[in-house]
Amino acid sequence: MRSQVAIIGAGPAGLLLSHLLHLQGISSIVLETRSRADIEATIRAGVLEQGTMDVLTAAGVGERMRKEGALHHGFELAFGGKRHRIDLHGLTGKSITVYPQHEVLKDLVSARLAAQGTILFEVSEVALHDVATNKPYVTFRHNGEAQRIDADFVAGCDGFHGVSRPAMPDQATRQDYQKIYPFGWFGILVESAPSSEELIYAQHDRGFALVSTRSPTVQRLYFQCDPADKVDNWSDDRIWAELHARLENHDGWKLKEGKIFQKGIIGMRSFVSTPMQAGRLFLAGDAAHIVPPTGAKGLNLAVSDVKVLTAGLVEFYRNNSEAVLQTYSETALKRIWRAECFSWTMTRLLHTFADATPFEREMQRAELENIAASPALATALAENYVGAF
Amino acid sequence: MRSQVAIIGAGPAGLLLSHLLHLQGISSIVLETRSRADIEATIRAGVLEQGTMDVLTAAGVGERMRKEGALHHGFELAFGGKRHRIDLHGLTGKSITVYPQHEVLKDLVSARLAAQGTILFEVSEVALHDVATNKPYVTFRHNGEAQRIDADFVAGCDGFHGVSRPAMPDQATRQDYQKIYPFGWFGILVESAPSSEELIYAQHDRGFALVSTRSPTVQRLYFQCDPADKVDNWSDDRIWAELHARLENHDGWKLKEGKIFQKGIIGMRSFVSTPMQAGRLFLAGDAAHIVPPTGAKGLNLAVSDVKVLTAGLVEFYRNNSEAVLQTYSETALKRIWRAECFSWTMTRLLHTFADATPFEREMQRAELENIAASPALATALAENYVGAF
Repeated sequence: MRSQVAIIGAGPAGLLLSHLLHLQGISSIVLETRSRADIEATIRAGVLEQGTMDVLTAAGVGERMRKEGALHHGFELAFGGKRHRIDLHGLTGKSITVYPQHEVLKDLVSARLAAQGTILFEVSEVALHDVATNKPYVTFRHNGEAQRIDADFVAGCDGFHGVSRPAMPDQATRQDYQKIYPFGWFGILVESAPSSEELIYAQHDRGFALVSTRSPTVQRLYFQCDPADKVDNWSDDRIWAELHARLENHDGWKLKEGKIFQKGIIGMRSFVSTPMQAGRLFLAGDAAHIVPPTGAKGLNLAVSDVKVLTAGLVEFYRNNSEAVLQTYSETALKRIWRAECFSWTMTRLLHTFADATPFEREMQRAELENIAASPALATALAENYVGAF
Repeated sequence: MRSQVAIIGAGPAGLLLSHLLHLQGISSIVLETRSRADIEATIRAGVLEQGTMDVLTAAGVGERMRKEGALHHGFELAFGGKRHRIDLHGLTGKSITVYPQHEVLKDLVSARLAAQGTILFEVSEVALHDVATNKPYVTFRHNGEAQRIDADFVAGCDGFHGVSRPAMPDQATRQDYQKIYPFGWFGILVESAPSSEELIYAQHDRGFALVSTRSPTVQRLYFQCDPADKVDNWSDDRIWAELHARLENHDGWKLKEGKIFQKGIIGMRSFVSTPMQAGRLFLAGDAAHIVPPTGAKGLNLAVSDVKVLTAGLVEFYRNNSEAVLQTYSETALKRIWRAECFSWTMTRLLHTFADATPFEREMQRAELENIAASPALATALAENYVGAF
């Protein structure tokens, strides 16, 4: 097989890249180790910045997002027994849309297939070759047969555990940055009406909790936990007791209960791998960087990476110039470091750190109080949250 | 001897309290273990917020400050080879005055003595008694003789190492908060014209540096050092080499050299002791809290403590009510925690931490870049610096 761009991974980054390239007349093939049903069923949160919505809309995949997504003009910070609203729209003129990542994925898969795009699901033994040269190729097995794609470029959009980053040809000089947090998030899906119209980010001595909504009949709730804990250690009763304890000292507000139909624990890390390009291999999304979910930036960063990478590839094919492509990593990283900093700050401010000294706990409290008291600080937070900065 | 208020310590807190009480017709005696010459010769930096200037002016001790102090409308943050001005006045409508703390002290001593105030210098063996009761007294030796002051109240203004805090009658239930930083500041006084009109706070891989000015002919320079280092390890040549290395990658600016006529190393800590009152003993200033000097808040906090304490004592003597006095600690601590948070933030952002991971170093850089790029963050920083928040 031959394609201008070989794309490793059918997550939001890979599928959006394939679709944006298609709209510019550039061919690509997407390789994915999992099945279509699998990727469409992997439930992930989704807070979409205005810029992300704009990209999806311009790509013609925004219709269901606009119809089914929930536009949020603010969120709440809860701490010290009080709740404080961050008026996103009032402070920045912008809002965010809550629309789950796997719904974005379904829209992208539909759009790619409707346009006769090639997505090869359930491939195995994916290997990247000669990516330091101008004639890279990718080998893999599909339906039991060994296959090969020759391409001009390879885009590594296969996430943190994918094969692309280890295949970068500059391993000796790469610089990675990482922080692994000493806690995870216990997430549940609940059959019930929303407890709150807007998201609630709650800081509590027992640990962080997050109240969000998946749909008018499904709540998505999270609480900070030991990342090594087991789901089986948490009965429904224990989960509700913990959530009530962390959330209900806030102004008499009540958490709505319901049937818990999914439980899971996710670890949390900050990670950036630099540079994001070497030779003809370009990394985008989680393959290059991870943010803890507290800042809700993961999907938005994947979209902004892809936007920058698309511009570089279009320039290459249209004007035979690598000038824009050569600045891909530098350009993308500016946005990425801002988002990493914001995600780290939100995580630091809202979680309980077991080893924090009494002084450090007071500093956390004082920082939250400052955000509630200072319009300038609240504005800075809101600008980061909506992606206006 | 008998006085309404016995004040331990002739620093800015004790002297200002004595003078503000005098202006309200309340008597006090100030006890100081050092000599007048000693306290007036102890050189300390001084960045005065507008609120501090207002208090000193209203107390009639602001004349020389207004004449000799330098009004600053901004300062510079230097990092990554660039300098970024924080336009204090433009962002907040307020400015600060650079006027050294020991000059404030001289003005206060003069004012107290001109008003026939009693300051007993070079006292020894100061001890506080019965401070949990309504009849506290203080014993000490002065000019070789044992003395005693009976008072209604005792104000502990004798600094971090003073006798007042250990004499608080609620030792069993007190809560202290502390962070000791793994670095100190090496400070020098230099005979030379200013290198910069405004203060420069410089972050550098080699460590923090601060450029400030004492007078048109004297510069005050600091650089981050090992707190256990010795002044004798630093020749003038080594000091200049270090300062040039940390400061001169910034836009071609040159540091002016001159004769170094004083060298010293100070340790850095954050410290808050709560509550600030118990029985008839009230702590103010460094006796209750320490900030690292990076935020320039030490003197300003002492002044704001004294303003709150004075209001409580005036209410007591005027209306025979302890209502305001009873809220002294709570009221003062709100301001103190904000200043502690700001001082910790400035310290964290600008110093090199030997144990920082590569990720943490990038977060420090990203936070500084954000301040330079976000008017909202710059405004929050400026509001804290001028004390508008």
